[in-house]
Amino acid sequence: MAKIKLRPLDDRVVVQPLEAEEVTAGGIVLPDAAKEKPQRGKVVAVGGGKLLDSGKRGELSVTVGDEVIFGKYGGSEVEVNGEEYKILRESDILAKVVG
Amino acid sequence: MAKIKLRPLDDRVVVQPLEAEEVTAGGIVLPDAAKEKPQRGKVVAVGGGKLLDSGKRGELSVTVGDEVIFGKYGGSEVEVNGEEYKILRESDILAKVVG
Amino acid sequence: MAKIKLRPLDDRVVVQPLEAEEVTAGGIVLPDAAKEKPQRGKVVAVGGGKLLDSGKRGELSVTVGDEVIFGKYGGSEVEVNGEEYKILRESDILAKVVG
Amino acid sequence: MAKIKLRPLDDRVVVQPLEAEEVTAGGIVLPDAAKEKPQRGKVVAVGGGKLLDSGKRGELSVTVGDEVIFGKYGGSEVEVNGEEYKILRESDILAKVVG
Amino acid sequence: MAKIKLRPLDDRVVVQPLEAEEVTAGGIVLPDAAKEKPQRGKVVAVGGGKLLDSGKRGELSVTVGDEVIFGKYGGSEVEVNGEEYKILRESDILAKVVG
Amino acid sequence: MAKIKLRPLDDRVVVQPLEAEEVTAGGIVLPDAAKEKPQRGKVVAVGGGKLLDSGKRGELSVTVGDEVIFGKYGGSEVEVNGEEYKILRESDILAKVVG
Amino acid sequence: MAKIKLRPLDDRVVVQPLEAEEVTAGGIVLPDAAKEKPQRGKVVAVGGGKLLDSGKRGELSVTVGDEVIFGKYGGSEVEVNGEEYKILRESDILAKVVG
Repeated sequence: MAKIKLRPLDDRVVVQPLEAEEVTAGGIVLPDAAKEKPQRGKVVAVGGGKLLDSGKRGELSVTVGDEVIFGKYGGSEVEVNGEEYKILRESDILAKVVG
Repeated sequence: MAKIKLRPLDDRVVVQPLEAEEVTAGGIVLPDAAKEKPQRGKVVAVGGGKLLDSGKRGELSVTVGDEVIFGKYGGSEVEVNGEEYKILRESDILAKVVG
Repeated sequence: MAKIKLRPLDDRVVVQPLEAEEVTAGGIVLPDAAKEKPQRGKVVAVGGGKLLDSGKRGELSVTVGDEVIFGKYGGSEVEVNGEEYKILRESDILAKVVG
Repeated sequence: MAKIKLRPLDDRVVVQPLEAEEVTAGGIVLPDAAKEKPQRGKVVAVGGGKLLDSGKRGELSVTVGDEVIFGKYGGSEVEVNGEEYKILRESDILAKVVG
Repeated sequence: MAKIKLRPLDDRVVVQPLEAEEVTAGGIVLPDAAKEKPQRGKVVAVGGGKLLDSGKRGELSVTVGDEVIFGKYGGSEVEVNGEEYKILRESDILAKVVG
Repeated sequence: MAKIKLRPLDDRVVVQPLEAEEVTAGGIVLPDAAKEKPQRGKVVAVGGGKLLDSGKRGELSVTVGDEVIFGKYGGSEVEVNGEEYKILRESDILAKVVG
Repeated sequence: MAKIKLRPLDDRVVVQPLEAEEVTAGGIVLPDAAKEKPQRGKVVAVGGGKLLDSGKRGELSVTVGDEVIFGKYGGSEVEVNGEEYKILRESDILAKVVG
């Protein structure tokens, strides 16, 4: 996979969607036919956090390398080096896949 | 039931819906025909709490193992190890079923 | 009436709707024909209060046993032990019926 | 007029609408034909005030006995002892009629 | 003009619309044909100010006697002593006409 | 140009739209055909600033005489001394034209 | 390229869109056919930052010269010296393109 070239702003993250038919170690299956279901992907870049009223930035709960589940219709698609990515806000991420 | 592999973010919880025709100890019946009615389920994973403006996280009112009633149309469905789960925000949970 | 088995979250209350044709001591009549009118019911369970920004919980103004008027279209219906209840937020309650 | 039996919550007030063709001492006429116009009524019960973030309750600007002008489409209608009332939030009240 | 009998609540003001074909000292003309344009009027009563979170009331920027420009579709019309008035929130007032 | 007679409230400004076909020193052209594009104009009056929660007023970033770009559909049109003006909130102003 | 003549207000930035068929050093390709995709552009002017409740201004995360990805439908188009620009709020910018 190419070295990522996008640095998202604020509480955004860049996610590389995983193929729906792939099966994770944890056995999650998200069949392509289930179009209304959330998608699975790998976090490849994270922003500096949301700017709070206090002037500080909120810490993100996900880091580069995390496998995540996110709503199919959130975020924006972008193509980098011939691969498709999604730029999402962290609030569009439902859960991390662990173990 | 398989060991859960999802760790929800913030104030989200992972709930395993119970069959509508099942009857709880408390005798709650939610017939499948009543499609507009809330659903019953068991909490299998909870997030770390909603990030507050103070920088702390709000404590969740439900814990793993709780039986809950939640709005049928809230949250996102996801399939893990061949079983269906729902990822909800805690605010989509109406009540705990106790006793 | 069966012992209630629902413990509502936050500022929610469980209300048992009263029959529209019943007449209270105070003489309130809410005819069934007046479908757009608020409903009358009895509070059977209350939540712990809304979580405030300060981390404390707001005190509810209604308690178990109160007779209340609430908007017909607010809240969610649920069936417990063969009886119909409504889970409402306290803000859906318009007034208490006193005396 | 019967002794009122409703105790509104928070910043709500119970108002008894006045007949549109009545003329007040101040000479306000709100003809029934002017259906889009605000209504006039008498305050018969007031709530304890809106719960503020500080935990205190905001003081209401109207009291029992005030004659008020309110938007025709705000609030909920309820029948008590055979008479029609409206349960409004104070913010639905436009003005007091004085003198 | 009759002595006004309305006392508006909060940040509301009572305005008496001026005839569109009138010309002010400043020469402002708001032709009746221009129906989508703002209206001109005279402030005849002001409220006590908007209740702030601090519990104080915000000071109004207009006073009785001011000539103002306001959006045609804001506020509510009411008839007092045979004359038409508008009850507006101060935020519906665009500008004062001075000089 | 006539001496302006409008004093806008809060964070509003009065702008005199410039003809689309005019060319500024900076060479900005906003052709009339491009109807969906922002407009250019000159600030002729500014309000006292938006009332903040603290009770102070926020300082405006534009002053009388500034040339500005603003969204075509924001604000209200008003005619003063036979000339057309727009009353806008400062947030409807996109940029100042400088140099 | 002409010296820019626009000074955006608050948290707005002026961006010069790059041709979709251009390829950056990082190899990002945003084909013109992909109309629903975000656009790439170069920041040519930035505002003073968003006015915070504290009265200070929030620091922008982008500076003049940054290459950015932004939503195709955000912001307003304006033509300066014969070239097309977009005036965006910083929150419409998804990511910076680095390296």
